[in-house]
Amino acid sequence: MKVVITGGAGFIGLRLARRLLELGHLIDSSGEERAITKLVLNDIAEPSVPLPEDTRLNFLPGDFGEPALLDQLITPDTGVVFHLAAVVSGGAEEDFDLGMRVNLHNTQCLLESLRALETCPRLVFASSVAAYGGDLPEVIQDDTPLTPQTSYGGQKAITEFLINDYTRRGFLDGRALRLPTIVVRPGKPNKAASSFASAVVREPLQGTPYACPVAPETGVWVLSPKQVVESFLHAERLPAETWGFHRALALPGLTTTVQDMVDAMRAVGGEKVVDRLSWEPDPVIERIVRTWPVRFAPKRALDMGFEADAGISQMIDDFVREELQGQVA
Amino acid sequence: MKVVITGGAGFIGLRLARRLLELGHLIDSSGEERAITKLVLNDIAEPSVPLPEDTRLNFLPGDFGEPALLDQLITPDTGVVFHLAAVVSGGAEEDFDLGMRVNLHNTQCLLESLRALETCPRLVFASSVAAYGGDLPEVIQDDTPLTPQTSYGGQKAITEFLINDYTRRGFLDGRALRLPTIVVRPGKPNKAASSFASAVVREPLQGTPYACPVAPETGVWVLSPKQVVESFLHAERLPAETWGFHRALALPGLTTTVQDMVDAMRAVGGEKVVDRLSWEPDPVIERIVRTWPVRFAPKRALDMGFEADAGISQMIDDFVREELQGQVA
Repeated sequence: MKVVITGGAGFIGLRLARRLLELGHLIDSSGEERAITKLVLNDIAEPSVPLPEDTRLNFLPGDFGEPALLDQLITPDTGVVFHLAAVVSGGAEEDFDLGMRVNLHNTQCLLESLRALETCPRLVFASSVAAYGGDLPEVIQDDTPLTPQTSYGGQKAITEFLINDYTRRGFLDGRALRLPTIVVRPGKPNKAASSFASAVVREPLQGTPYACPVAPETGVWVLSPKQVVESFLHAERLPAETWGFHRALALPGLTTTVQDMVDAMRAVGGEKVVDRLSWEPDPVIERIVRTWPVRFAPKRALDMGFEADAGISQMIDDFVREELQGQVA
Repeated sequence: MKVVITGGAGFIGLRLARRLLELGHLIDSSGEERAITKLVLNDIAEPSVPLPEDTRLNFLPGDFGEPALLDQLITPDTGVVFHLAAVVSGGAEEDFDLGMRVNLHNTQCLLESLRALETCPRLVFASSVAAYGGDLPEVIQDDTPLTPQTSYGGQKAITEFLINDYTRRGFLDGRALRLPTIVVRPGKPNKAASSFASAVVREPLQGTPYACPVAPETGVWVLSPKQVVESFLHAERLPAETWGFHRALALPGLTTTVQDMVDAMRAVGGEKVVDRLSWEPDPVIERIVRTWPVRFAPKRALDMGFEADAGISQMIDDFVREELQGQVA
């Protein structure tokens, strides 16, 4: 069975790829365990790190909305697709046309190519808590309506509706996870409005000064890179009946604040690390971030066996161990 | 100012057109009252009745998703668009591709052509209570999440999300009304799964036998043709500030049952009319109709001045007077 990851050169895509190669199998549309014989990573960007040496693994560069590329990417042996590719929140807000093209139009092309297989392949989609927003209850419940306040959040919500209908019709077997903010991401700050949530600890721990664009009391709903990958795998493995009609849910996460993260970083790296931080509020980022919810009661996800992380300190420790080889700068 | 009605050859489109010609003005994007100098009805079907003789009125046949047609339809003088054109519920369920093309893709083209004007035109969109569905609360509240169970309902919900984002960005000034089932529609039964709700009284009152595809106890949330037209006008006239961020709401209606409608018909036409009815449950129609809600607490709409009808008897009396010239067959 072939497995595809869109956005496969991204940090989470690569992590998921390594985990899939290690596992060696997934569940196909018939509910049977199948060996992964091919794993294709698609991305518009080249991977920033060398890919694992593995004969099953291929990288297919290009735009997943291009018909010619889709013909190569989605072939009759494709049993499972992890759809992670997206223009991030800040990018989709800055360039409406780009966000609509990639996050909505291209995704529709992908759904159509999966439908054309007529094998009801499994699709795991990275949705986002940005699908919520505005005047929200104190704690988000499973039945809190989606009221996105950004183009990115709207595009994620719309994709969930499409996936629900494609699934109901038997065109594919979709599962959409509203991801918390992933912390700690390695790499560099990017255009995601949530970029600060990783950068505020990553940059100082790596020895780089960082100007945080939001206030210390800013709340964030977070999940670790490790746990998001496990959640994608768990979403894929669950039987269709367990999902039932509604194919989207908010993943369990942790409620934290920028200040909590800074305190946990101080515990690991001391005051010299914290001194690398400065505070330069950016009203555009703050406006977007303020629309995101920070407290959830993800009952359905917990009942279905999805798990949150143990705590923010653990998440920072994992980052130092996995990405900095245990060395704080 | 030019005003456009898509689906303008339909029953509601024509009724709205007559009312607009009578009124002679609407509110433009600046909030000013403007004379309607042109009223263009677009539809893929020819109007089934002669259009009113009026120099302001034009009929433009064709598919509103065609770029060449859109260039003619949406011109710089277009101040207001009523977007009524759609593949109906049963049709979109029967032909997925057709529903997606017309209800979603073509609507996106229309939104883009309005955006390209750069004048923030007002857009009134006919959404539907089919955007709700499934395991619903006894009474639908303003914050009940959209959980469509049909492709049609999904396409309506998605369009609401698009209109919200286009409005937030200032590309247009959108207002979406989730229409109850419109009763009594003149004409013939069509592919709308809700077709029975009018046919069950219209056909017998016109002297035609009718096999009702749903059981007498089937509940329906209804609104009259007259009141839906007034609601479209009211939606257009309300200031943008009154709408605020959320540009969609469920219109006030009446909760009735097929049996209530039959009883009201008996009061008007006697037993001989009721004898023209037979009961032939259609599982496909019943499945779709069962997913629709029948009780609402449309607080926000009522607060904003939208109104329901006085009662089902009045709605049937209006039909006999307006469409049958007072003569029951």
